[in-house]
Amino acid sequence: MGIWIRKEGGVTAPEGFLAAGVGAGIKKNGKKDIALIYSEKTCTAAGVFTTNLVKAAPLLLDMEHLAKTGGKAQAVIVNSGNANACTGEQGAKDAVAMAELTAAKLGLKREEVLVSSTGVIGVNMPMEKVTAGISLAAETLARSGGSAAAQAIMTTDTVPKEVALTFQLEGKEVTIGAMAKGSGMIHPNMATMLCFITTDVAVEGEALRQSLKTAVDATFNMLTVDGDTSTNDSVLVLANGVAGNSPLTQNSAGYADFTSALTEVCREMAKKIAGDGEGATKLLEVQVKNAPTLQDARLVAKSVASSNLVKTALFGEDANWGRILCAAGYSGANFDPAKVEIYLKSAAGELQTAAQGAGIPFDEDQAAAILKEKEIIFIIDLRDGEAEACAYTCDFSYDYVKINADYRT
Amino acid sequence: MGIWIRKEGGVTAPEGFLAAGVGAGIKKNGKKDIALIYSEKTCTAAGVFTTNLVKAAPLLLDMEHLAKTGGKAQAVIVNSGNANACTGEQGAKDAVAMAELTAAKLGLKREEVLVSSTGVIGVNMPMEKVTAGISLAAETLARSGGSAAAQAIMTTDTVPKEVALTFQLEGKEVTIGAMAKGSGMIHPNMATMLCFITTDVAVEGEALRQSLKTAVDATFNMLTVDGDTSTNDSVLVLANGVAGNSPLTQNSAGYADFTSALTEVCREMAKKIAGDGEGATKLLEVQVKNAPTLQDARLVAKSVASSNLVKTALFGEDANWGRILCAAGYSGANFDPAKVEIYLKSAAGELQTAAQGAGIPFDEDQAAAILKEKEIIFIIDLRDGEAEACAYTCDFSYDYVKINADYRT
Repeated sequence: MGIWIRKEGGVTAPEGFLAAGVGAGIKKNGKKDIALIYSEKTCTAAGVFTTNLVKAAPLLLDMEHLAKTGGKAQAVIVNSGNANACTGEQGAKDAVAMAELTAAKLGLKREEVLVSSTGVIGVNMPMEKVTAGISLAAETLARSGGSAAAQAIMTTDTVPKEVALTFQLEGKEVTIGAMAKGSGMIHPNMATMLCFITTDVAVEGEALRQSLKTAVDATFNMLTVDGDTSTNDSVLVLANGVAGNSPLTQNSAGYADFTSALTEVCREMAKKIAGDGEGATKLLEVQVKNAPTLQDARLVAKSVASSNLVKTALFGEDANWGRILCAAGYSGANFDPAKVEIYLKSAAGELQTAAQGAGIPFDEDQAAAILKEKEIIFIIDLRDGEAEACAYTCDFSYDYVKINADYRT
Repeated sequence: MGIWIRKEGGVTAPEGFLAAGVGAGIKKNGKKDIALIYSEKTCTAAGVFTTNLVKAAPLLLDMEHLAKTGGKAQAVIVNSGNANACTGEQGAKDAVAMAELTAAKLGLKREEVLVSSTGVIGVNMPMEKVTAGISLAAETLARSGGSAAAQAIMTTDTVPKEVALTFQLEGKEVTIGAMAKGSGMIHPNMATMLCFITTDVAVEGEALRQSLKTAVDATFNMLTVDGDTSTNDSVLVLANGVAGNSPLTQNSAGYADFTSALTEVCREMAKKIAGDGEGATKLLEVQVKNAPTLQDARLVAKSVASSNLVKTALFGEDANWGRILCAAGYSGANFDPAKVEIYLKSAAGELQTAAQGAGIPFDEDQAAAILKEKEIIFIIDLRDGEAEACAYTCDFSYDYVKINADYRT
């Protein structure tokens, strides 16, 4: 239904981007843990960062760099295994060092490099390993390096997450690519989720910032895995303009298409993150319809998607719609509980379980068949307006507890 | 340190109260499921109810009754096994029927009876069983019936919860007693937690309401098990004045002592509920010190106590203080992250793990010894003011998921 076509690859799918992913020994298991993205040309850049008062050192540095350059960047250096959060002055120095080392290797200014970190909190970075890893990453940058980079940003993720879309803009074929990580500590607004988006579209700074905000509000900010908003959440976008279109502004004919494609990229990444939530066995999409306002719709969708009781019932494939209505009720949204209808939906069919705010008789066997699927949709029709919203999450399993009971060791 | 002395018993510990707990077959397992509290004299009554927009039928009825009588009541009828929530018009009729049946049995007016329900949501009440249960309960009312009543309000609770305190007021010995239930779907503000408080103190309506609000704000509203605010949460207090003191007003000399004792009763119940949280293996008290304001202190304490990541780490006995600071950071409270100190404490000792917002070296063996205990305290010193607050919760275990994955069936 969109204007775009899926394409293989991720951050190096757009023209003019190279990437690398290497193992530097930050992770104890020897897996890849340093990713580098590099554009052959200077990019317009924008970022959205965690709302947590406790922000990791690299986020503060990125905000400083983007302010200094007025929204320009040419490379992003990322490490997994250590979040460089709650690390005091040493942490701030280490983030600067990562940018400086990368800049030196690539012949850039420090502020043209953005930095991201994810992993354990409160432990200082093993800078010797990081330094060697940055050198190695810079030496192995390649057009084919996108998937290695996507692997290198994983923590408890079970699969790497990449997407690329191509579409027509002013008669030119353009591409948006992305990689993301995140499976725990994920909650609006922004979640440790990291997402890095690249595009060969030419776009002005303010238009890029606005487009990113629109995309993130409808996708990553509607994503929750466990209700914990990380210290490190970041979405960064780099647009290098290699496609050669005349730079987009908010008034350009192509701006809506660009924003729509960027939103689709973010939605795809958000769904992949939710589906790979720590311990997840199911992906849940909560659709709210006919809400009084967009804010009410979003509050209800996020509240239901955040409910431990809804998510454990989903894990148990239990059609406990009462918990859905309960979570809608405490969302803070304004609606009339006596009008609400609730439906369960999946590839196996659709089933109404509540009308006028109360239970109606339904076929438990059909409910069980619907909930047996891997991708489930709960539809909450408030019948109290026209606004709608979607939130994304996963079920809540034994394995979530297992993964998180002993993460540090 | 208080002015009170612990006493055996619960809601029938104060003079002039009778209670009963019987099995009516509402619960499939045949356990007790109807509780009745009755005072020989008319009581001043007050209630605090869930903030959920979706309120169960009995809560709406109680609010109506308390408004009609100007805060008087003489009996409380409670059932467990069915929450009578999301049950439409029939649910409202059933709540009224419960009050009417009880009133008829006890020779009261309908509005002198308060009604509570807890259990599964969205299923109509089995009124034939409830009716028989109310009759049986009325016939078995006794001074010794307090613990049977406490058993009859349990759902996934593993132990009944009762407390009683006695203290001196105007030279008279007075008593406050209580019973509570609740182990899942518990989150500020108000959690399904139900708490029923009785006292032989004479107290005016407005003073009782204010005293209850003060007590609940510092205790039940600082209690969280799983972040879900129930449709049924209620705290009800009945004061029958049998002790013969001159009725307390907010200006009485004894008002502060009464509020302090009432708060202690609520705190004891809140801690028992947290310690018996679904699947809990540990009780966690989150103490916030030196916050800029009381609201900041409470926001931080509640946020840390609500964090799934903090609670799973506690289950794993993992000294992951970074998650504590992270949860403080997204609480919405105003403080300087760079000043924060964090301490872990239990009967095994006390250990500082963070200073100036960053990790400090600590003895992992000592941390393990502290976290091995059943009752754990996290102290978060914001060093940014003088306000303090406490929140209560439990750890997050495999069994929480197990209990909630398949609750309906």
